[in-house]
Amino acid sequence: MKRKINIGLIGFGNIGSAFAAYLISRKNFLKQKTGIIFELRGIVEKDVKKVPQPYRHLLFPSVEKLISTPDIDVIVELIGGIQPACKYILGALENGKHIITANKALLAEKGDEIFQLAKRKNLYLGYEAAVAGGIPIIKDISQSLISSQIESMLGIVNGTSNYILTLMETDEISMAEAIKIAQKRGYAERNPSLDIDGIDSAHKLAILIRLGFGYSPEFTKIFKEGIRCISHLDIKYALELGYRIKLLAIAKKNGRRIEARVHPTLLPVEHVLASVRGVYNAVYLKADLVGEMLFYGRGAGKNPTTSALVSDLVELARFYNNDNRVFLGYYMNPRIEGLVDIDEISSRYYIRFMAVDKPGVLARISGILGKYNISIASVTQKERRKAKAVPIVMMTHEAKESNMKKALSEIKKLDVITATPVSIRVEE
Amino acid sequence: MKRKINIGLIGFGNIGSAFAAYLISRKNFLKQKTGIIFELRGIVEKDVKKVPQPYRHLLFPSVEKLISTPDIDVIVELIGGIQPACKYILGALENGKHIITANKALLAEKGDEIFQLAKRKNLYLGYEAAVAGGIPIIKDISQSLISSQIESMLGIVNGTSNYILTLMETDEISMAEAIKIAQKRGYAERNPSLDIDGIDSAHKLAILIRLGFGYSPEFTKIFKEGIRCISHLDIKYALELGYRIKLLAIAKKNGRRIEARVHPTLLPVEHVLASVRGVYNAVYLKADLVGEMLFYGRGAGKNPTTSALVSDLVELARFYNNDNRVFLGYYMNPRIEGLVDIDEISSRYYIRFMAVDKPGVLARISGILGKYNISIASVTQKERRKAKAVPIVMMTHEAKESNMKKALSEIKKLDVITATPVSIRVEE
Repeated sequence: MKRKINIGLIGFGNIGSAFAAYLISRKNFLKQKTGIIFELRGIVEKDVKKVPQPYRHLLFPSVEKLISTPDIDVIVELIGGIQPACKYILGALENGKHIITANKALLAEKGDEIFQLAKRKNLYLGYEAAVAGGIPIIKDISQSLISSQIESMLGIVNGTSNYILTLMETDEISMAEAIKIAQKRGYAERNPSLDIDGIDSAHKLAILIRLGFGYSPEFTKIFKEGIRCISHLDIKYALELGYRIKLLAIAKKNGRRIEARVHPTLLPVEHVLASVRGVYNAVYLKADLVGEMLFYGRGAGKNPTTSALVSDLVELARFYNNDNRVFLGYYMNPRIEGLVDIDEISSRYYIRFMAVDKPGVLARISGILGKYNISIASVTQKERRKAKAVPIVMMTHEAKESNMKKALSEIKKLDVITATPVSIRVEE
Repeated sequence: MKRKINIGLIGFGNIGSAFAAYLISRKNFLKQKTGIIFELRGIVEKDVKKVPQPYRHLLFPSVEKLISTPDIDVIVELIGGIQPACKYILGALENGKHIITANKALLAEKGDEIFQLAKRKNLYLGYEAAVAGGIPIIKDISQSLISSQIESMLGIVNGTSNYILTLMETDEISMAEAIKIAQKRGYAERNPSLDIDGIDSAHKLAILIRLGFGYSPEFTKIFKEGIRCISHLDIKYALELGYRIKLLAIAKKNGRRIEARVHPTLLPVEHVLASVRGVYNAVYLKADLVGEMLFYGRGAGKNPTTSALVSDLVELARFYNNDNRVFLGYYMNPRIEGLVDIDEISSRYYIRFMAVDKPGVLARISGILGKYNISIASVTQKERRKAKAVPIVMMTHEAKESNMKKALSEIKKLDVITATPVSIRVEE
């Protein structure tokens, strides 16, 4: 009868220290609820000054020491990044330690090796904290929705981008101003590229695709388009048309292949995802048995992340002594053949042209669109006094991405067009 | 090594037959994902004609036979109602069978005996299907949010009521008309009382309170007010004020006691719950670590319910052979002292009076409200040509329920008041 789980922690930063403090202050609370003692048994932190007195006696000199200590059951990795985290986790698995990690980049880019080793060793790999913070989307998909076949997932999984887009709408400010405010409030890094260029969202998408579709996508093949191209003008025009612009991580089953793409997207304001504001995250999915679902909550922060880490600890405790561990989330669907190239997808589009206000402009634009089989659902030409160029905003019917690219590149060359056309995909 | 779970099913109605069909058609799918064979081993259905040929060989003559068959591991109870379901479940537990049930009325009204026996016998009691259908709210609260202390829960947990209220708003029709349409579409029973009088919502609330607060409320003490009093007029006026009316199941920690109430509620249209339309369900909660969360999906129907039942089966399989089963959701918080009486709660209120259009009416109404310490946040008096009475709509600041009752009963007696005043509580 094992009623105690000994934990080795790698990384004592913002998240690691909050997690450690929780384990100590709420030890009794967790014991009352589960019957298990969760004991913080060791810490490795390369910057020892970060570790205050009450935790000093738990310090280990190296990861090697920590993962070779026999009475440590599980390693919680919270240093992030690909290396040395990958080496540490593989080493810990080799030594028979269960793993809990919040490392989305690692699982998205080098997940296969880690998942396969954990499976071979019959060890637990918990990563609830890697996607959407406090939202239990990993357990929801792997356990609660196990009976369903997922058809599509749309996620707002990067709080920074969502905060910036929300601020641009509510305060009617530019992207640059919104980024500055987000940085001041601690919601954006000094170099915000990972967040606003869609890379972080794509990391989470890769993990969701593995779990939801049983397919391990090559990370570099996931289409990524960030929010830098979004202007306040487009946010305003989209709203006038009844849409809100969100950075979405999108995965859809398309025959035997998967569409996997991160890009700004127009969503109808009535869509449940459109009301996700500020730093909140949400995952919307469709599956055959359950239909439409939405999971909404805080996608980052030390407390929501601690909640996710503890839920993994409890899951581990529940089958720790089982002679017959049932792991979920390892199922790979052999019938999935690969990802769909972005040029092959079809979508509705919002497009905005800046054009000289002259007779015949609209005819020339729509002529080119027609040539590429792109049919226009609505057009608005905005009046602008004294402006050299006027915005022409169009919503198209469903069109092929490759056709749209060709049409836009041709339209861009027209002498009446004064700026690179803006195009944003639409989800209904 | 046990790699097979044998299932005994009681009840072969709409849900039972869909669940049975799923187990048979998706046996391989589940085996691929879990490594476990889930085998439908026996069925009890009092109306044998309901059971078609391919299932006939599984029929057992009685529940007694089913629950005393040694190789049946788990009983899935889908007949609903208090008796004989209660007797069957207690008998099955006594015989060492794990239980999965969708029976919200039973767990809400007689839960203690069942939970305690399951715990004493070290047996699983799964009831994901009892609350909010396909939304995995039971596992989310008991497992994924185990580290958090829940502060409040607001649920739209009755799809019928939500469908009726949505229809009254979108189609601008009366309650009676909306009920008729709901009945025609199969969303409401011929006698819709259980749904529209808030009893079904209160059943689910009782279960959520046990799980979320570790307190087993006496069912009769949960305050229940249904939607019969809601007119299209109030839906319209509320919308004009920026609110939508929803039937909410509300639980809030209030010191050492719990507020537990089901009633129509004004929610700001920007609230994430306000956009839950039609037959959809959602549970919104606040907890110390994770902050605000929302779980949204289909609350009823054979497929979402099957999803919930299967997720319980998989949970059971995961610790079936564990020598040290860790059960979640049994924790009772000894510090909770009871429920808060409805008269003691404080709330903002929407109130509507129908009054004769004469000078001094507003002064008399507001005088009485003032006497009971009820402060008015806004007033709108609607003009109505040729009408004998005009509606006066007020939003109050926070007021005590007992004071509101007294004030309304006094105002009702005024000779200028032509109908019983309408009052609806507000959540922000």
